[in-house]
Amino acid sequence: MKAAPAPARLSLNQETVRQWSLPELVAGCVAAGVGAVGLWRDPVRAFGARETAKLVAGAGLRVSSLCRGGFFTAADPGGRAAALDDNRRAVEEAAELGADTLVLVSGGLPAGDRDLPGARGRIAGILGELAPWAGSHGVRLGIEPLHPMFASDRCVVSTLGQALDLAEQFPAEQVGVVADSYHLWWDERLPAELRRAGAGGRIACVQVADWITPLPQGVLLGRGQLGDGSVDLRGFRALADAAGYRGHIEVEIFNPHLWARDGTEVLREVVDRYREHVA
Amino acid sequence: MKAAPAPARLSLNQETVRQWSLPELVAGCVAAGVGAVGLWRDPVRAFGARETAKLVAGAGLRVSSLCRGGFFTAADPGGRAAALDDNRRAVEEAAELGADTLVLVSGGLPAGDRDLPGARGRIAGILGELAPWAGSHGVRLGIEPLHPMFASDRCVVSTLGQALDLAEQFPAEQVGVVADSYHLWWDERLPAELRRAGAGGRIACVQVADWITPLPQGVLLGRGQLGDGSVDLRGFRALADAAGYRGHIEVEIFNPHLWARDGTEVLREVVDRYREHVA
Repeated sequence: MKAAPAPARLSLNQETVRQWSLPELVAGCVAAGVGAVGLWRDPVRAFGARETAKLVAGAGLRVSSLCRGGFFTAADPGGRAAALDDNRRAVEEAAELGADTLVLVSGGLPAGDRDLPGARGRIAGILGELAPWAGSHGVRLGIEPLHPMFASDRCVVSTLGQALDLAEQFPAEQVGVVADSYHLWWDERLPAELRRAGAGGRIACVQVADWITPLPQGVLLGRGQLGDGSVDLRGFRALADAAGYRGHIEVEIFNPHLWARDGTEVLREVVDRYREHVA
Repeated sequence: MKAAPAPARLSLNQETVRQWSLPELVAGCVAAGVGAVGLWRDPVRAFGARETAKLVAGAGLRVSSLCRGGFFTAADPGGRAAALDDNRRAVEEAAELGADTLVLVSGGLPAGDRDLPGARGRIAGILGELAPWAGSHGVRLGIEPLHPMFASDRCVVSTLGQALDLAEQFPAEQVGVVADSYHLWWDERLPAELRRAGAGGRIACVQVADWITPLPQGVLLGRGQLGDGSVDLRGFRALADAAGYRGHIEVEIFNPHLWARDGTEVLREVVDRYREHVA
């Protein structure tokens, strides 16, 4: 007997099953009845953006997001220009894939820099050049706030409120926000900021992962399988729904314990856990 | 030639030089011209609260804080009663030491609990019983917000704003807040919340440590020596000053690399770095 298809809104982010090649990812999602995937630039470029687009579209899958552009907090003109170039290419890749959103992670503080407000201030400037480029390619940028524990080395945008302050300087069809439960669950302002995001049509992408402790060295790869941690994931999804979000819910879990297992088994567990804790 | 005495507002938190016994701590601070210490309950109780009080006062040192009470997010009546008992004893110990502030870390989510607003809500209830007890002992409670990366397992109070929302339900002489650069540096609302705290006479204690990456496994012991990281420490201290704070600036760095070194050398470095990056 075949298992019931996965819930319609579930999208599988590629990094959750990093052990899978792109063809394995596509075949695995089709077999499980998962209708969308979130992709990453490095594996897409290695496989070829056009070839990936063909593979994914040929299987009837939607690309809910391409991760990621951003990293544009450089203070020097050379670093800034290089970031802008790279982000223009990312927009082109997202267009090629027909991705709903190009996820942007802002970048951290430049080496030796302690001026957090300054770094935050530079982001709007570069978005001013990137947003029209995205618009002309039919791509929507999604500013993703990362947990404050990444503020120095990865992303100076730490709350949904900050992401919205940035996004709202541009047309909603060009710049939205990405709401990831892992990064935002602790923030008491989250319900209000999700309402604000929804009211402005700014919710470009919703991602889910659970928060587990102890955090591993470097903290990047410590995300938890849905239901293993402290996040009220159903409440989070319900807040996004109440704000008017109707798009995919992308499961994005960076966790070496999942990568060490059989991808099909991991995806089956993701679907089960999604039903139990998110849907 | 003797070194110049340490800056007048510098206080040395005991955990920065965990390798020192209490007598070593006191002798080391006197020798370095440091006028105040922050103490921890476990070593104080091991040495005896009365004996510690004599030792410290006899050396002319002030106790800027006693760390720590709190951990009162238990949902069950037994856990709640035990927490209240323990915190009453902590108040008595703080009174014995003549400590300026008893630092309170709220505690994380109970095991298996995903109701963050619920846990946050229970804190005010127990403070309602503890604050008058503190007042009658001449002790001031200081609610310390911890970095959001500790929200699940250590402290559901994640921002200075949340700490103030709690403190302001009680008389300012009974309940203030503790502002630690390590926990708060990322928060764009920090300047406004420090002004609010100062205007209400709520700044009970100011602590400094730097933010460095990569974070170690478990993230607790990853604090940086002053000047080694991303925090604008002088700006942080200046914000507290501008808000009217005139008390000690306590250096609290949990870092095994400092503990592995000679305590006198670590304290000398702390004093030098304080002059360079904080004063």
